[in-house]
Amino acid sequence: METILYAIPAFGLAALLYTWIRSAWVTKQPAGNERMSTIARHIADGAMAFLKAEYKVLAYFVIIASLFLAYLGYTGERSHPLIVGAFIIGAFFSALAGFIGMRIATKANVRTAEAGRSSLAKALKVSFAGGSVMGMGVAGLAVLGLGSLFILFYYLFVVSQGADVNGVQMEIALEVLTGFSLGAESIALFARVGGGIYTKAADVGADLVGKVEAGIPEDDPRNPATIADNVGDNVGDVAGMGADLFGSYVATILATMVLGREVVVLDQFGGLSPIILPMLIAGLGIVFSFIGMLFVRVSEGGDVQAALNRGNWISVVLTAIASYFVIQWLLPESLNLRNFDFTPNGVFMAVLVGLIVGGLMSIITEYYTAMGKKPVNSIVQQSSTGHATNIIAGLAVGMHSTVLPIIVLAAGIVLSYAAAGLYGVAIAAAGMMATTAMQLAIDAFGPIADNAGGIAEMSELPKEVRERTDILDAVGNTTAATGKGFAIASAALTSLALFAAFVGIAGIRTIDLYKAPVLAGLFIGAMIPFIFSALAISAVGRAAMSMVQEVRRQFREIPGIMEGTGKPEYEKCVAISTQAAIREMMLPGAIALIVPLIVGFGFKGVFPDTSSPEILGGLLAGVTVSGVLMAMFQSNAGGAWDNAKKSFEKGVEINGVVEYKGSEPHKASVTGDTVGDPFKDTSGPSMNILIKLMSIVSLVIAPHIGFEQEPAIPEAPLELEEINLNEQKKTLPGTAKATVNGEVTVSLH
Amino acid sequence: METILYAIPAFGLAALLYTWIRSAWVTKQPAGNERMSTIARHIADGAMAFLKAEYKVLAYFVIIASLFLAYLGYTGERSHPLIVGAFIIGAFFSALAGFIGMRIATKANVRTAEAGRSSLAKALKVSFAGGSVMGMGVAGLAVLGLGSLFILFYYLFVVSQGADVNGVQMEIALEVLTGFSLGAESIALFARVGGGIYTKAADVGADLVGKVEAGIPEDDPRNPATIADNVGDNVGDVAGMGADLFGSYVATILATMVLGREVVVLDQFGGLSPIILPMLIAGLGIVFSFIGMLFVRVSEGGDVQAALNRGNWISVVLTAIASYFVIQWLLPESLNLRNFDFTPNGVFMAVLVGLIVGGLMSIITEYYTAMGKKPVNSIVQQSSTGHATNIIAGLAVGMHSTVLPIIVLAAGIVLSYAAAGLYGVAIAAAGMMATTAMQLAIDAFGPIADNAGGIAEMSELPKEVRERTDILDAVGNTTAATGKGFAIASAALTSLALFAAFVGIAGIRTIDLYKAPVLAGLFIGAMIPFIFSALAISAVGRAAMSMVQEVRRQFREIPGIMEGTGKPEYEKCVAISTQAAIREMMLPGAIALIVPLIVGFGFKGVFPDTSSPEILGGLLAGVTVSGVLMAMFQSNAGGAWDNAKKSFEKGVEINGVVEYKGSEPHKASVTGDTVGDPFKDTSGPSMNILIKLMSIVSLVIAPHIGFEQEPAIPEAPLELEEINLNEQKKTLPGTAKATVNGEVTVSLH
Repeated sequence: METILYAIPAFGLAALLYTWIRSAWVTKQPAGNERMSTIARHIADGAMAFLKAEYKVLAYFVIIASLFLAYLGYTGERSHPLIVGAFIIGAFFSALAGFIGMRIATKANVRTAEAGRSSLAKALKVSFAGGSVMGMGVAGLAVLGLGSLFILFYYLFVVSQGADVNGVQMEIALEVLTGFSLGAESIALFARVGGGIYTKAADVGADLVGKVEAGIPEDDPRNPATIADNVGDNVGDVAGMGADLFGSYVATILATMVLGREVVVLDQFGGLSPIILPMLIAGLGIVFSFIGMLFVRVSEGGDVQAALNRGNWISVVLTAIASYFVIQWLLPESLNLRNFDFTPNGVFMAVLVGLIVGGLMSIITEYYTAMGKKPVNSIVQQSSTGHATNIIAGLAVGMHSTVLPIIVLAAGIVLSYAAAGLYGVAIAAAGMMATTAMQLAIDAFGPIADNAGGIAEMSELPKEVRERTDILDAVGNTTAATGKGFAIASAALTSLALFAAFVGIAGIRTIDLYKAPVLAGLFIGAMIPFIFSALAISAVGRAAMSMVQEVRRQFREIPGIMEGTGKPEYEKCVAISTQAAIREMMLPGAIALIVPLIVGFGFKGVFPDTSSPEILGGLLAGVTVSGVLMAMFQSNAGGAWDNAKKSFEKGVEINGVVEYKGSEPHKASVTGDTVGDPFKDTSGPSMNILIKLMSIVSLVIAPHIGFEQEPAIPEAPLELEEINLNEQKKTLPGTAKATVNGEVTVSLH
Repeated sequence: METILYAIPAFGLAALLYTWIRSAWVTKQPAGNERMSTIARHIADGAMAFLKAEYKVLAYFVIIASLFLAYLGYTGERSHPLIVGAFIIGAFFSALAGFIGMRIATKANVRTAEAGRSSLAKALKVSFAGGSVMGMGVAGLAVLGLGSLFILFYYLFVVSQGADVNGVQMEIALEVLTGFSLGAESIALFARVGGGIYTKAADVGADLVGKVEAGIPEDDPRNPATIADNVGDNVGDVAGMGADLFGSYVATILATMVLGREVVVLDQFGGLSPIILPMLIAGLGIVFSFIGMLFVRVSEGGDVQAALNRGNWISVVLTAIASYFVIQWLLPESLNLRNFDFTPNGVFMAVLVGLIVGGLMSIITEYYTAMGKKPVNSIVQQSSTGHATNIIAGLAVGMHSTVLPIIVLAAGIVLSYAAAGLYGVAIAAAGMMATTAMQLAIDAFGPIADNAGGIAEMSELPKEVRERTDILDAVGNTTAATGKGFAIASAALTSLALFAAFVGIAGIRTIDLYKAPVLAGLFIGAMIPFIFSALAISAVGRAAMSMVQEVRRQFREIPGIMEGTGKPEYEKCVAISTQAAIREMMLPGAIALIVPLIVGFGFKGVFPDTSSPEILGGLLAGVTVSGVLMAMFQSNAGGAWDNAKKSFEKGVEINGVVEYKGSEPHKASVTGDTVGDPFKDTSGPSMNILIKLMSIVSLVIAPHIGFEQEPAIPEAPLELEEINLNEQKKTLPGTAKATVNGEVTVSLH
C-alpha cells in the first residue's frame, strides 16, 4: 500500500526533474545577437514586473482568505485549521507554476527566433521544449503537492486515529486537502483575468494606434505598445493558461478523491483504491506525456501540426491503455456510490468517455474557428457589406458553435454516469485531464513562437526567420483554439464532479428545481457569467483606451519616433497594462469568491423547506450551465473573427472579386477581430475558472452550511419483522426521506 | 356562480365593442392628400400581403399540429380530442388579433400624419387611439376566448358528469383549454420571429444602401426599400408584439387556472374560486385600462411621456385596488396548494409583487437604454476609438444590464412564493399582465407614430408635421424599450407558472438537478436560446444582403431613380422581406415545438431512476433561465446602441470635442445600431415566446408522458395506531416516496 501512495509524489518529482533538465537545455541555447537580447530582456522584465505586482496583491488576498479559513477551520466540526496550510501551499504552487512557465517562455522566445535562423525543425524543438517545461512543471507541482499533502493528512487524520478509510476522519482529511485546490484555483482566477486584461489591453491598444492610425505593421519597434503586447502573450497565454489548467487538474483529481471516499468498496487496500485512483492516473499521464513529447519533431518543410497531433495521440492512447490495467488491478469487482452499482469496467468506460469528449470538443472547436471552413467563411462573406454585418455574422457563429459541444457534453455526462455513477462523471474528467502536461506543452509552444516572431520582426532578422516562426504561430493559433475547447470541456466536467462532491459533503439529497428559492438561485447563478464577462471586456475597453492615449502622446511628443531615431518609452505602456490588469481583476474575482459565501451562509435557515446548500446547488448549476455556454460563445466567436481577418491576408473571393489586406471588407474584418480579442482571450477563458472556483468555494464551506435541517439519525431503528409489512406497499401518514444507503427515515405525525 | 362565470366573456365582449367603436372613429379621421393616401396604401398592401403569405403557411402548420393533437387526444387517458378545437380557436384568435392590430395601425399611421398638420395633441389622440384598438382587441379576444371555452368545457366535462371541481375531470377540462393557449402561442412565435426578420431585413437593407452608400436620408421615397421598411414597423412592432402579449396573457391566466384546480379550498363556489380568479382579474384589468386610456391626452407642447405614464399608473393602481376586493370576496380564509398554506392576503401580496416586478423591470430597462444615462454614454464615449470599441461597449452594457433585472426577478419568485406558494408565483404573473390592454396601447402607438413620420417624410409634408411625429416617435422608442422589459419579466413569470402547472399534470414530485439526465437536460435547454438567436440574427443578415443587392440593382438599372423621375419598384423589396421572413421562421419555430416532444417522448422509460418529465423539467429550466438572460442581453444592448447613435443627432461631447452626425464616432455608432437591430427586434424579443411556447408544449404533452414510473396508489393504507409509532422517528429498510398531499408510500424489501 505504502509503495503506491509514495509512488504518487514520486511521479510529481520526476516531472519536476524533467522540467529542471529541459529548462537548463533551453537556457543553454544561443540567445541571438545584442539587439535580440535587448528586446528579449525588455519582454522578460515586463513580464516579471507584472508577476511581481500581481503576486504582491495576491499575497494580501492570501492573508485575508487564510484568516477566514482559519476561522472556519477552528469553528467547524467537520473541518480543521490545517486547511490554511493546504491553501497557502496551493496558492504558492500555483504562483510557482506561473513563474516557471513565464520564465521559460521569456527565455525560449528569443532562442526560438535564433534557432529559426537555421531551421524550422530547430525552432520547433526549442519552442516545444519551452512548452514542455511549462506542461511538466504544472503537472509535476500538482501531483507532488496533492500526493504529499494527501499522505500527510491521511496519516494525521486517519491512520494515527485508527479511523475508517471511508469514514468522517477521511472526509476531514479530504476537506483539508480541498484547501490546496482552493489556493490553486483562486490564484488561477486572478492570473487568468489579470493576464487576459493585460494582454488584450496591450494588443487592442497597439493595434488601434499602430496598425489603424499610424499605419505601421504589427510588432514594429516604433510602436511604444509593442513590448507590452509581447509581454501580454506571456502573461495571458502562458501564465494565465498554465494557472487555469493547474487549477482544473488539481480540482478534478480532488473532486474524484472526495467522491471516492463515499464509494462502498471491499478492496485489498482497506477502501483506499477509489480515492487514490485519480492520482495514479494523473501520474501515468505524466509518464506517457513524456513519451509523447519525444515524438514531437519535424524535418524542414514538415507538417508541424501533424507532429503535435502524433505526440498528443501517443500520450492519450498509452494513458488510456495503462489506465485500463491500473483500474483492473486496483479496483475490486463490485463498487457502489450513493446506491449506484458499478464495476471496474464501468470506471474504465467513463475514462474513455472523458477522453472522447475532450477529443470531440477540440475537433468541433477547430471546425468553428478554422480558416476555410463554413463558419469562418460566412464571416468573410458578410464582411463585404461592412463592419456591422461582420459583427452580426461573428456573433451568430459564436452562438451557433454552442450546439454540438453542448450535445457532446450532455451525452458525456449521461454516459459516464451510466458507466459508473457520479464517480464516473468525476473520473471522466480526470481521464480527460490526465495528459495535461502534453496538452499544456502544445498550448504553450504557440505564444512562444508568436513572441519569437515578434522578436524577429523587431530585430529585423532575415525574412525566412519570420516565415518559419509564422508557420509555428499559425499552428499555435489552431492549438490555442482547440486547447480552449478542451479547457472548457474539462472545466465543465470538473465542475460537475465538484458539484457531486459538494452534495455529499453538504449532506443534501436533492437539488430540487421545483422549489422557488432553488430556481431563484439558478437565475442568479446563470447571471454571474454575464456580469463577469461584462466587467472583463469593459476592463479591456477602458485599459485599451488608456493605452491608445499614451501611444498617441508618445507619437506626438517624442521627436523622431516615427523615423526610428527617437526611442519609444516602452515601460510606460507596460506599466499601463500592469496597473489596469491588477486594478480590474479585483471586482470579478471578488464576485466569484464572495457570492457562494453570501448564498451559503446568508440563506442558512431562511426557508423552512429549502436548505442553503440546496439554494447554493441551484446557483452552482446556473453558473456552470451559463458559464459553459458563454465560454464557448465568446471563445469561438473570437477565434472565428480572428481567422476571418487572417483569411484576407491570403486573399478571399467575395462575389467573384478577390479581396486582400487593406480592402474595405478586410477593414470590417479587423473590427471583428478587435471585438473578438477580449472575447477569446479575456472573458471567454475566464469562465472556466469562474465556474470551477465557485464550486470549490462551495465545497470548502459545505461542512459549515450543511446538515442544519437534516433529521437526526434515528436512534431506535425498527426492524422489518416487528411491523410485519414485508412484501407489501403501505401508506403511512407523515413525511419520509430516503437516506444515501437506501434506508428510510419516517417521521410520523 | 353562473353570474360570475358569464361575466368573464362579457368583459371580453365589452373590450371588443370598444375596439369596434374606436376603430370606426379612427377610420373616420381625414386620411390626408392624394400622395399620402397612395403611400399609405402601399404600406397597407405590403403589410396585408405579408399577413396573407404568413397565414397561408401557418394554416398548414395548424393542420399538421391538429392531427398530432387529435392523436394525443384520442389515445390519452387524461385528455380529449376537443383539444383540437381549442387549439384551432386559439390559433385563429391570435391571427385575428394580429390582423386587427395591423389593420388599424395601417389606417392610423396616415391619419396621425394628417392630424400632425394641426397639432401634437391631435396626432397623439389618433395614434394612441390606434394603439388602444390593438390593446383592447388583444385583451378582449383573450378573455372572450378563454372565458367562453372554459364555461363550455366546465359544463361538458365537470358539471354534466356531476364531477368534483378539483378532480380529474376538471383537470381534463383545463388540459383541453391548454390547446387554446398552444394555438395562441405557436402563432405568436411565428408572428414574432417572422415579423422580426421581416422588419430588420428591410431596415438594415434600407439603411446599408440608402443611408450609407447612396447618402440619402431615412424614409426617402427614392429608396426602393423604404416601403418595405415601413411595412416592417407594422409587421414586427405591431403584429409581432401583439401576438407576443396575446400569448403571454392567455398562458399566464391558463397556468394560474391549472394550479388553481389543485388548490385545496372550501369556498362558496364549490372550489371554483382559485380557478376563475385570474380571469376575473384580467376582466378588471380591461375595465381599468379603459379608464386609464381616458387620461392619455396632452396639450400642444405638453409632455407625451407624462401623459402615457399617468394613464398607465391609473389603470395599474385601480386594478390593484379592485383585485384586493375581488380576492377578499372570492377566496375563503384558508387555502393550500401542495402542502403550502396561504391566505387571500397572501394572494393579494403576490399580485402586488407581480406589479412591482413589472414596474421595476421597466424602470431598469429604461435606465440601461435611455439617452443621457451612464450605460448609453459609455457607448458614445467608446465610439471615439472606432467601430470595434463601440461594439465592445454595447456588448458589455447588454451583459451588465442583466444583473438588476435578474435580482428583481429572483426576489419576485421567492417573495410571491412566500406569499402564496406556487399559486402566488402564477398570480403574480397574472397581476402583472392584467393591464395588458393599456400596456399594448402604449407599445403600439410608437410604431404608428414612426410610420406617420415616414409618411410625412415621403409625402414631403411641412417640417412641423415631422417634428410632431418625431416627438411621438422618441417617446415611442422609450416605451418600446420599457415594454420589452415588461414583456420579458412577464414571460419569465409565466414560464415559471407553466413549469409549476407542468409538474402537477405530469405527476412528478421533484426535478432533481443532482440526477445526471436532468443536468444534461438543463445544458441542452440552456443551449436552445443560443441556437435560436443564432438562426434569427443570421436570417436577418442573409435577408438584408438580398435586400441590399436588390436595391443596388434598382439604383443601377432604373433610369432617373435618384433624380426622383424614375419610380422605384417598392413591391420587389416587399416581396424579398416577405419571402425571407416566411422561409427563415420555419427552423427556429420547429426547434421550439419539436425539442420538448423529442425529450418528453424519446426519454420515456430510458433511465431507471429519472422519468422523462423530470428531464423535460430540467430542459425547461435551462431554456427559461438562459432565454431570459439572452433576451435581456440582446434587447438592452440593441436599445443602448440605438440611443447611442441617436445621441449624435443632438451632438455629444467626447474628450472635450462636440461630435455630430457624420463624424467618425457617429459612423462607429451606426455600426453598433445596425448590429443592435436584429438583437433588439428579432432574436431578443423572440426569446419570450420561445420559453413560453416550450413550456406550453410540455404542458400539453404532460398527461401523455407522466406517471409512467410512479408507484401505484397503495390499496391498504396503514393507520398510525396500528403500528404504534406515534411521536417517534424510526428507520425502516426500504425506499419511500412522499406524495403530494403529505402521505408516505413505503415499499419494504
